[in-house]
Amino acid sequence: MQFSDILYAVDGPVATITLNRPDKLNAFTATMGAELAQAVGLANDDDAVRVIIMTGAGRGFCAGADISAGAGSFDTKSGEGAKNFGASRSADGDGGLGGNGGFVGALFNSKKATIAAFNGPAVGVGATMALPTDIKIASDQARFGFVFARRGLVPEAGSAWFLPRLVGTAQALRWAIEGNVFDAAEALKGGLVSEVVPHDQLLARAREIALGIAENTSAVSVALTRAMIWRFGSAELPFDLLKIDGPFALELGSGGDVKEGVASFIEKRKPAFPNKVSTDMPSGYPWW
Amino acid sequence: MQFSDILYAVDGPVATITLNRPDKLNAFTATMGAELAQAVGLANDDDAVRVIIMTGAGRGFCAGADISAGAGSFDTKSGEGAKNFGASRSADGDGGLGGNGGFVGALFNSKKATIAAFNGPAVGVGATMALPTDIKIASDQARFGFVFARRGLVPEAGSAWFLPRLVGTAQALRWAIEGNVFDAAEALKGGLVSEVVPHDQLLARAREIALGIAENTSAVSVALTRAMIWRFGSAELPFDLLKIDGPFALELGSGGDVKEGVASFIEKRKPAFPNKVSTDMPSGYPWW
Amino acid sequence: MQFSDILYAVDGPVATITLNRPDKLNAFTATMGAELAQAVGLANDDDAVRVIIMTGAGRGFCAGADISAGAGSFDTKSGEGAKNFGASRSADGDGGLGGNGGFVGALFNSKKATIAAFNGPAVGVGATMALPTDIKIASDQARFGFVFARRGLVPEAGSAWFLPRLVGTAQALRWAIEGNVFDAAEALKGGLVSEVVPHDQLLARAREIALGIAENTSAVSVALTRAMIWRFGSAELPFDLLKIDGPFALELGSGGDVKEGVASFIEKRKPAFPNKVSTDMPSGYPWW
Repeated sequence: MQFSDILYAVDGPVATITLNRPDKLNAFTATMGAELAQAVGLANDDDAVRVIIMTGAGRGFCAGADISAGAGSFDTKSGEGAKNFGASRSADGDGGLGGNGGFVGALFNSKKATIAAFNGPAVGVGATMALPTDIKIASDQARFGFVFARRGLVPEAGSAWFLPRLVGTAQALRWAIEGNVFDAAEALKGGLVSEVVPHDQLLARAREIALGIAENTSAVSVALTRAMIWRFGSAELPFDLLKIDGPFALELGSGGDVKEGVASFIEKRKPAFPNKVSTDMPSGYPWW
Repeated sequence: MQFSDILYAVDGPVATITLNRPDKLNAFTATMGAELAQAVGLANDDDAVRVIIMTGAGRGFCAGADISAGAGSFDTKSGEGAKNFGASRSADGDGGLGGNGGFVGALFNSKKATIAAFNGPAVGVGATMALPTDIKIASDQARFGFVFARRGLVPEAGSAWFLPRLVGTAQALRWAIEGNVFDAAEALKGGLVSEVVPHDQLLARAREIALGIAENTSAVSVALTRAMIWRFGSAELPFDLLKIDGPFALELGSGGDVKEGVASFIEKRKPAFPNKVSTDMPSGYPWW
Repeated sequence: MQFSDILYAVDGPVATITLNRPDKLNAFTATMGAELAQAVGLANDDDAVRVIIMTGAGRGFCAGADISAGAGSFDTKSGEGAKNFGASRSADGDGGLGGNGGFVGALFNSKKATIAAFNGPAVGVGATMALPTDIKIASDQARFGFVFARRGLVPEAGSAWFLPRLVGTAQALRWAIEGNVFDAAEALKGGLVSEVVPHDQLLARAREIALGIAENTSAVSVALTRAMIWRFGSAELPFDLLKIDGPFALELGSGGDVKEGVASFIEKRKPAFPNKVSTDMPSGYPWW
């Protein structure tokens, strides 16, 4: 598949999605959002892919919406704003994605582990688009801003849900109400990213984390684990989860991955898990 | 409006609510709770006000309920406890507030950004009453205590909901079960406040934060942002939020605030947002 | 009551539950899970007990499921896995516990404060089994691992609900997806434990915390406080809590614990709270 605003490349067990409008600091477009969702879909359907890395081409991660049309950049009535609005903005998901929340839904429901590698400025939708990833690391040159209130907008792409979960409600409110741009050190302190590395080591470190996941974990386990944490991490009570995690443990316990997981642990060697997310998810998945 | 247990003053875009029983370390009364709700209402209805600062007169922020009646201070059967119980204690909100959760509901539903500036001891309801504010800073002389278990009471004013969101469930449990009083440094480490400043700089710093919000952000954006984060920050899934934030972005995108926000950003100048929360909230607000 | 896989001992106001298969690093069995739930029940029904401490005998806290049967250790079809599966795995709670989520439900619904004292490796279910405790401290020799994805399993015992609440969604995802084993310092930094102490001081410190709770707090208040924070800490909105905490404050306000709590505070002495959780819980408890 050929994309216009992103690159998609698979190298071993790692798919890398690169936001690719480097002359515009990868400013977001509706096309980029739709392509991001499609690329996550490709990775999901490819059993060879275990981990998805998101990063940006050139100096930026994503500078936010494309405001090259000036003050009317978000104005869909004048037509100038159409470029910025698309499938990402509504739950019924126009733009050819068939609903499911566009790229937000695609990342949220991904069966593969997802890593955001922030290589430079990630501002506005450029920051919020990557919130649904599982692991976030940053170059020491990255900057972040939930600047919506400074543009007359609101946090979007579900970020009023994602940000409080990731960094706590207090930090989410402070960043979103002040709307300031902050550096990688503040992002680390506030919990938005879990590591900051020297700029030229960012992609190598992201790949190292990805390969660690690919080499050591079961694909089926990771798909279930991320879905369970994202979906039950905000449930009101734990009891519905107990109806899910017990049966999963029982069913998986008799399967090939667990036998290999236990055997490889006892034999102190890397595992070679046989099961695939395309064909071997347990009977209760998806439970929603 | 004349208040008895608080002061209310507007200076430029900042309304300051000062708990004002300094001879009692601003011990809480039902009157104070009702007046706090009324003052937040005044600020909400005044488009000139962008940010509300809460602080205390004299040495304390709020020493908790007024126990000057001794062991019977909370006993409504003997009549001595009436002073301490009022609109803040029930969702149907007696005390002239017309329901909506008293001061908790007023702060939670505020359209204006809210800052707590803890100038001294904030204990019991004196700590919990300010939990619904968006930003919390403290003097290095502040102290805090969720001491309910040491008095035979329970965390109140919705604090069993607010505290875990702000500081995490583990820290909330530890402070509330041990019931100890702790200093500003522990409050900062635990995430209860986001800044600790020298005592004599507290109000200046609170005002600096408030003016930064007033000068740089859209009033409508801030009202929507705080409501979205407080209300969706604990929703089970992000999908209902996507039905809200997409339409808001679309509607705001064609409005005056966004045009000014983008233009001022491009022109590297302070924005002059035209829209007011009294008349210009988007059609989907309030969505609850 | 005589247990086979745990020890249960009461010393003053502190009940200690010791996981007791030291030759197996206290590897989890279904029997251990059932006995843990029973022991929590004993402590709950004993008004003399104010705090429950969980720890492990010997070098480990709990090394996880017992895999001494090799690759088939979790295989209930072959019969080898029966030892590892029991009441803890399903909400309908077989194993003689009569449902209610087994040991997860027992800890979650405990009326007594609970402390986990991690004395050594806590891996897999050995880590997740203690997540529902209120306070967690660790020896500097403790290690932790949510290693399920490395064994082909999933986080269990409700841990996909508990872990994000305790350490945030970002940290929960990272530990559970990578499945690595980490030390006490990382557990402290990530918020899994609130204190790390020298190994030989662990139990003394846990007892010190427990006695602090027992000496200073009301048993009824602690029972209500932990239930309110665990149960409303994840509710979508605060308003239902206001319907609970207001009436509790009113009812407790006229009772003996509050009179003693206020009197002892004014007289600067230790309180002697008269009320018991067996007979004196307020009329609205349990509210679920």
